[in-house]
Amino acid sequence: MPQFEAVVTIELKPDILDPAGEATGHVLQQLGYPLEQLRIGRHITLTVQAADVAQAERLVGEMAQNLLANPVMETYQVQVKAG
Amino acid sequence: MPQFEAVVTIELKPDILDPAGEATGHVLQQLGYPLEQLRIGRHITLTVQAADVAQAERLVGEMAQNLLANPVMETYQVQVKAG
Repeated sequence: MPQFEAVVTIELKPDILDPAGEATGHVLQQLGYPLEQLRIGRHITLTVQAADVAQAERLVGEMAQNLLANPVMETYQVQVKAG
Repeated sequence: MPQFEAVVTIELKPDILDPAGEATGHVLQQLGYPLEQLRIGRHITLTVQAADVAQAERLVGEMAQNLLANPVMETYQVQVKAG
């Protein structure tokens, strides 16, 4: 079965606190960088076997929704590269 | 001064172990997903003040190289959105 590379990008929703991002942003500001805001999300790369791109997107979307992201606090985007 | 949104995508180099990614991949495989490999990187979004896109790219590149990524173990990509 063909393999597809996919990327799942996960960001915290805007109203969820991000202490690690805030701390990192403060350090950069103290070093003199003209930074307004910094948020840290996840960039998950994976390879799935699927019959076609549509099935790969469905599978990766399911994994993202049910296991990789926390839909209460996070938003996610799925990108599947054509095999 | 104009503000620019930027994204820094950080991935572990291929020969660096990723225990969290491996554990997540195993769980998904045990749930029946036809997964080959899964790696977890970071997706950092930030806003900087700069005179133009070129300066914003330079600033964000510096931050990524010196502070956000660990260039020994990680690779990074910088994308600045036109203000």
